[in-house]
Amino acid sequence: MAKMNAFYAQSGGVTAVINASACGVIETARQHKDKIGKVYAGHNGIIGALREELIDTSKETPSTIAALRHTPSGAFGSCRYKLKSLEQNRAEYERLIEVFKAHNIGYFFYNGGGDSADTCLKVSQLSKTLGYPIQAIHIPKTVDNDLPFTDNCPGFGSVAKYVAVSIKEAGLDVASMCDSSTKVFILEVMGRHAGWIAAAGGLAAEQEGDSPHIILFPEIAFDKAKFLKRVDECVKKFGFCAIVASEGAQYADGSFLADSGTVDAFGHKQLGGVAPTLATMVRQELGLKYHWALADYLQRAARHIASGTDVEQAYAVGKAAVEMAVAGKSGVMPAIIRGKGKRYSWSIGEAPLDQVANVERKMPRSFISKDGFSITEEARDYLLPLIQGEDNPPYKNGLPVYARLKKVKVEKKLSTAFKV
Amino acid sequence: MAKMNAFYAQSGGVTAVINASACGVIETARQHKDKIGKVYAGHNGIIGALREELIDTSKETPSTIAALRHTPSGAFGSCRYKLKSLEQNRAEYERLIEVFKAHNIGYFFYNGGGDSADTCLKVSQLSKTLGYPIQAIHIPKTVDNDLPFTDNCPGFGSVAKYVAVSIKEAGLDVASMCDSSTKVFILEVMGRHAGWIAAAGGLAAEQEGDSPHIILFPEIAFDKAKFLKRVDECVKKFGFCAIVASEGAQYADGSFLADSGTVDAFGHKQLGGVAPTLATMVRQELGLKYHWALADYLQRAARHIASGTDVEQAYAVGKAAVEMAVAGKSGVMPAIIRGKGKRYSWSIGEAPLDQVANVERKMPRSFISKDGFSITEEARDYLLPLIQGEDNPPYKNGLPVYARLKKVKVEKKLSTAFKV
Repeated sequence: MAKMNAFYAQSGGVTAVINASACGVIETARQHKDKIGKVYAGHNGIIGALREELIDTSKETPSTIAALRHTPSGAFGSCRYKLKSLEQNRAEYERLIEVFKAHNIGYFFYNGGGDSADTCLKVSQLSKTLGYPIQAIHIPKTVDNDLPFTDNCPGFGSVAKYVAVSIKEAGLDVASMCDSSTKVFILEVMGRHAGWIAAAGGLAAEQEGDSPHIILFPEIAFDKAKFLKRVDECVKKFGFCAIVASEGAQYADGSFLADSGTVDAFGHKQLGGVAPTLATMVRQELGLKYHWALADYLQRAARHIASGTDVEQAYAVGKAAVEMAVAGKSGVMPAIIRGKGKRYSWSIGEAPLDQVANVERKMPRSFISKDGFSITEEARDYLLPLIQGEDNPPYKNGLPVYARLKKVKVEKKLSTAFKV
Repeated sequence: MAKMNAFYAQSGGVTAVINASACGVIETARQHKDKIGKVYAGHNGIIGALREELIDTSKETPSTIAALRHTPSGAFGSCRYKLKSLEQNRAEYERLIEVFKAHNIGYFFYNGGGDSADTCLKVSQLSKTLGYPIQAIHIPKTVDNDLPFTDNCPGFGSVAKYVAVSIKEAGLDVASMCDSSTKVFILEVMGRHAGWIAAAGGLAAEQEGDSPHIILFPEIAFDKAKFLKRVDECVKKFGFCAIVASEGAQYADGSFLADSGTVDAFGHKQLGGVAPTLATMVRQELGLKYHWALADYLQRAARHIASGTDVEQAYAVGKAAVEMAVAGKSGVMPAIIRGKGKRYSWSIGEAPLDQVANVERKMPRSFISKDGFSITEEARDYLLPLIQGEDNPPYKNGLPVYARLKKVKVEKKLSTAFKV
């Protein structure tokens, strides 16, 4: 193939390490100048391609690109936007091809979760469906840890570490105050459909009595009486009770403990507010003093406490994506493969996109204890390696120094605008 | 004075560095074995003295005591308990003396905020009022940063750093998503009466457009129309709006936003929380998608992101307290004195407790911009040195390793119990 430019875009909710993948893509592409021309990043994800808003990453210095490795969020802008099927919105695909042609783009790197894998798959099929030759590689990213094939998803390990560290620290706080003050503490964490993130909180409990004492998973039907009984038992036994609650915690009938009634662009329900709901129960039924925290974006943006393993893997999948493209591959995703030995090891494998797209990996029931309130040794064995290692960003004036990009736009070549 | 034992207690809400003060007290006392016998820590603060529940810190190894320096929360237990005046509850003071006598205690180190300074002052007067000779030294601690005399309070710098880092990171997250998703983000922080902590969030805004774009202080009457107008302007100008809101934000009539009695966006009765209250306004009046976080205990327990300066100062005031006691002083508090030079420096001075107790230091109006939504250069000059330096705890298995004390209780010598 002649030397072509590459398009890179970030998609869906961002993470503490998605820019490490961007760093892996750009640095590796720069090492393959014989095959890859420039890397154009979509401004605000795939929307940037549709609008012909491309950021010329060649205008960024090597040190700025290197700094992406320790910068949270999506440096080029991300979006919540899912391409419809070719039949439903052919115009979008034709527009993509128009933009790719105008900018000599032959490589498509899409950095996202399950919905994005679906988009990437559709783009990989453009050669067949619309006759435009393009190699599309999906780069895994999601704090939800729900992509199949890959052992884990970049972004998850850092949220896991944040949640485990946070409940450990807040638990110590409550322990020291519980004799005369707060007795119940609830930390609400992300995880609409699966309890991966909530489970990670369980890593903080290293010894009997350690926080968290209760974890609420979306996978386990919430039973108010059982929950309150357990809270009461913990307070009697340990003096306090520290709880990690998934935002997706739900009743047996599938209704969420906190349902905002609003939906995001992908049609997913927007959740929030499990912690105050639980707190009200604790106060009304047990009369105990409580505090609660809702970490929200703090948990997925917390690059300052990122997992070193996560950072390495995020970089590695970006690097591998470019290497796969250079090797002539398309319609695939670099996946993290866990080694079989007792000691944790990992390598990069390859997953076919048509089997990745729209498949949601559930957390095994065997990760949750019989009583439904904690994690098992099996879960611990899986989770613990993912939070290993610290990868501190540089600091100046007491604050982390994160990359500031110039974001020079590529000159538009098309006379038509496209309304997204 | 003959060799006497010391009593040390932690009081009020704990911090990321109060144990660093404990470390300073115990390590320094161990260097003065000619004058100070054992250091007995109150189990759960002053309540431990009243109940004769004393922890023998001499049973802890030097490495455990050293580990207190990097351990958040109150390792010996704290309490929210204020001694009444001698006239109102003479029995409490008589009990204290009974316990002190029984355990040969001649030094009293009390580690807390304004209320605790008052208690410490009363104890320092026991020689005069009840004829029991004791030297009482107060050790400053409060995330509220509201003690007089001292330039700042140990505990505050670390919360300040946590809040500045968190809004910087979450702000980057929102910036990358705002084109097609969340446009307004609100981080609620502590500070019921003063905006010190909220102000610290302003340190993250280093350049035009940086988060936070709006800070809500308790000192500035909340004006809904003005607030919404500013949010709207920010979204139009920067694409998004990141807000730090103090839990103490209030209307002109002094009523708290958190006590507004409204129903939140999730249809639940408002459970307290400035952030959800503001979020509801943003949604109802501007129709913008929002997210919010409530850091709660996470902010004051976050030893993993503690300020190096704060850790040093917390240790130093503990050390100085013992040195003052050994020098025969009583009724005083080590205070942090800021050097006069352009370059930040500090030393330890001495404040008379009768002028510290029950005096609340307000944040100067000159720290807040004219429009009431951000901090001034004067505030930045004051705050920035306090978050300098990183002091990472050791990690094992991906998690910080915090001290685990044996907490061996001193054998009780009194036959009477005391009901607190």
